Amino acid sequence: MCPDTMLALSGERFHVAYRIAGDETEARARAAEICVDQTIEFPLDLVPRSDILDGIVGRIESLAPVDGQHWEATISYPVEISGLDLMGFLNVVFGTISMKWGIRVERFDLPPALLRAFRGPRFGRGGLRALLGAPDRPLVATALKPLGLAPADLAAQAYRFALGGVDIIKDDHILANHSFCPYRERVERCGEAVRRANRETGYSSLYAPTVPGPVDRMFERAMIAKEAGAGALLVCPGLAGLDMMRCLADDDRLGLPVISNPACQATYATGGEIGLSWRALFGQVARLAGADASIFGHHGSQFAGSERDCREAAAGCESPMGHIRPIFPMPAGGITVGRLPEFIRFYGCDVVFLVSTGLYRPGPDLTANARAFRRAVERPPLTRYAD
Amino acid sequence: MCPDTMLALSGERFHVAYRIAGDETEARARAAEICVDQTIEFPLDLVPRSDILDGIVGRIESLAPVDGQHWEATISYPVEISGLDLMGFLNVVFGTISMKWGIRVERFDLPPALLRAFRGPRFGRGGLRALLGAPDRPLVATALKPLGLAPADLAAQAYRFALGGVDIIKDDHILANHSFCPYRERVERCGEAVRRANRETGYSSLYAPTVPGPVDRMFERAMIAKEAGAGALLVCPGLAGLDMMRCLADDDRLGLPVISNPACQATYATGGEIGLSWRALFGQVARLAGADASIFGHHGSQFAGSERDCREAAAGCESPMGHIRPIFPMPAGGITVGRLPEFIRFYGCDVVFLVSTGLYRPGPDLTANARAFRRAVERPPLTRYAD
Repeated sequence: MCPDTMLALSGERFHVAYRIAGDETEARARAAEICVDQTIEFPLDLVPRSDILDGIVGRIESLAPVDGQHWEATISYPVEISGLDLMGFLNVVFGTISMKWGIRVERFDLPPALLRAFRGPRFGRGGLRALLGAPDRPLVATALKPLGLAPADLAAQAYRFALGGVDIIKDDHILANHSFCPYRERVERCGEAVRRANRETGYSSLYAPTVPGPVDRMFERAMIAKEAGAGALLVCPGLAGLDMMRCLADDDRLGLPVISNPACQATYATGGEIGLSWRALFGQVARLAGADASIFGHHGSQFAGSERDCREAAAGCESPMGHIRPIFPMPAGGITVGRLPEFIRFYGCDVVFLVSTGLYRPGPDLTANARAFRRAVERPPLTRYAD
Repeated sequence: MCPDTMLALSGERFHVAYRIAGDETEARARAAEICVDQTIEFPLDLVPRSDILDGIVGRIESLAPVDGQHWEATISYPVEISGLDLMGFLNVVFGTISMKWGIRVERFDLPPALLRAFRGPRFGRGGLRALLGAPDRPLVATALKPLGLAPADLAAQAYRFALGGVDIIKDDHILANHSFCPYRERVERCGEAVRRANRETGYSSLYAPTVPGPVDRMFERAMIAKEAGAGALLVCPGLAGLDMMRCLADDDRLGLPVISNPACQATYATGGEIGLSWRALFGQVARLAGADASIFGHHGSQFAGSERDCREAAAGCESPMGHIRPIFPMPAGGITVGRLPEFIRFYGCDVVFLVSTGLYRPGPDLTANARAFRRAVERPPLTRYAD
């Protein structure tokens, strides 16, 4: 074999834990399939070189029972096959097996050589807390609704929420560049409204517009938002692509916090037996893709997902990943002032509560509704909620 | 109500058919939820204006039983709320319900005002057939494998497949920009190899490299491929984003056919009770996103999906959508010369067969393997397979 075709691999490997449906024999066979599917996707007996078999094909590092119907296989891959970028990494993690039933990505563990390829969240928990002047309490966010309102109406709402101390006032994810609500006018009016309220209150509320497509205009649109005074960006990676979210987060011209919205993306985490776990999708992947906060539906609301899924999403937002900062879980669904103690017991204080109906429903005065929520998250001692 | 806040809607609406799990009462209630979730996502009693209730909220146009456990609801939305672009359209179709179990997008029907927002596939079936000089027979494609080979080795394979008459020789989807197989060197060598073979054979085989990330370098990389003589591009919209695939397809500087690969994307169509149907994802959505051919796993192979799913994917590739061209279904999995009659009976002749192992396994001479396949798809009369 000539030297110029020999693989030069560092030996550093990343590890992916897959939950596989079946008994031990089935799980072992499927784990062996994953090792091939996610790398060479080629019959082993046709592989022309032993260094490819030894170096490229995934390796089963462990196989352990999860419950009567599932096993967890940890498989390792050489860092080089990821191409050292997000798209290539995700392709190795679950590209081909996205076509298969009964295999779910649970979590992953990346060595320094791969982590170095990612900047991760620009702000993370500490950075976002510093921007908001909120060192330790739960944060409050809301959405400007409903679709159909004109920019002036949305800006009026934004102003009232900011006056009441809502930390992050985001566009509803469905807001795009609509004939009845053009993007530029919306971000200029809402950005101005939140800044005006901040001048009056001394708060540092952030306006986070949804950055609409087309994808090749997202940088330009994000820059319009920044110039209009937006303090963060709402991105739907299920629509824009995870790597586009990463680009927006990484861009030093923008330098804004990024909030990840699960629109069109949650299918990956809704199937149970397919896709990714909540820990992986809403936690680990969101962080690699540069999100500073990650929205998901709280269990028991109208959204799919169990109590455990939500705990795992929150855990994935803070589990150790080298220099990749911890971020805020941002649960939505059914959050009200009355239920706040329950939510704080569940998520602790490192959380952004995304409160929509809970801030519109209590009464017609949105500022009063917001103030009540702000007081509730500020009420000391916070630890009294934490069991 | 002041005139400047009144919605000015054209009255043109698009229709989405959802399959909903449950009995009639449940299905009707969930359909009503979809009408709200996918538009205002806000309590109806809090909506401040009747024109938003009347004009923006989705409308149930019909509800019909599918089987004992499912109903199909057709819901219409005003075209304006899509923002008249792909990201906004998909957001309305299934943004929020991607977080819910038991709702699947079956298909959609778009009026001219929305279809005009999309160029669709640049080539489609007719254009790709013209490029390949193959007016009516099934087309044959293969993938350069396995990951781990150097550019020179992959180019040698590409040359041998092209000599044997394989129409489309694509990179394996996992090929990125690897230390052991750099993107530029690969596309230059493989592009040259296929052109050289074409000069010898008189065929018009196309080399289709995988365009790797990061997403903000995909245009530049696609242009490198074009300059290297690539005849098409392989894009993974599950990694790059559907709208990024559309951008590459729409770009006149490139002007290349686009092949959609389901890596990381198929989760949307694997769950059964969630996401999108094969017709919608691999057919209709792929066409709106500019793909000229759409890869999916053939049933009975290692991939999820039933015989019916595959028929529906193929139907979605050609169902009427105004000026949006029909494209090629590109099934993969288990395709061999021996099974070709069965596959042609199933898909007809407007198909690209993606044959991997079936072109490597028969013998060490890849050109001979390819020639046998080419002869088999050229063998007249093709209609003898079509029942």
